Amino acid sequence: MRPFKHPAASEFSLERVLYALSDSIRLDIVRHLACVEAATCGELDGGRPKSTVSHHFKVLREAGLVFTESSGTNHMNTLRRADIEGRFPGLLSAILAQQTS
Amino acid sequence: MRPFKHPAASEFSLERVLYALSDSIRLDIVRHLACVEAATCGELDGGRPKSTVSHHFKVLREAGLVFTESSGTNHMNTLRRADIEGRFPGLLSAILAQQTS
Repeated sequence: MRPFKHPAASEFSLERVLYALSDSIRLDIVRHLACVEAATCGELDGGRPKSTVSHHFKVLREAGLVFTESSGTNHMNTLRRADIEGRFPGLLSAILAQQTS
Repeated sequence: MRPFKHPAASEFSLERVLYALSDSIRLDIVRHLACVEAATCGELDGGRPKSTVSHHFKVLREAGLVFTESSGTNHMNTLRRADIEGRFPGLLSAILAQQTS
């Protein structure tokens, strides 16, 4: 299995973070991860097809929002809150504070 | 000429606002509009082709970020700052406060 690619914080792009959060499924995943220490993909997929959810996790990883690592037969995901906060102070909390319709 | 369509603030969607700001050209337009009272499309296009810029203005209008009205032979654009702030408190300022790359 290929290891997951994660950008360094210095490579983060504001546009990519905003794009990653411009989808309701990805926004849900990030909201969920903001409330827990770590979660498997299964705990975050909301019963959606694996192929759909895999794509969303890839977008979130490439934006620098999510860190995924293998843990036995699972993938554990964590929110890269400190990295995002360091690069874009106040951004994530301002977005997660919003109510979605 | 068809009048421009602008959503009511109650119709704004967080995802649509984030998507609209996930492009560097659109982010530049919004940054510029945040500093002035109003601007024509020509003042905001950065010398880019009209067809490209028209698409970007449409995305910004549909998200509720920009209001466009005809003024003689020009189109004048304003940032809907109060409407966005009312619906998504703190969001726009948190995004515009970020440094890009």
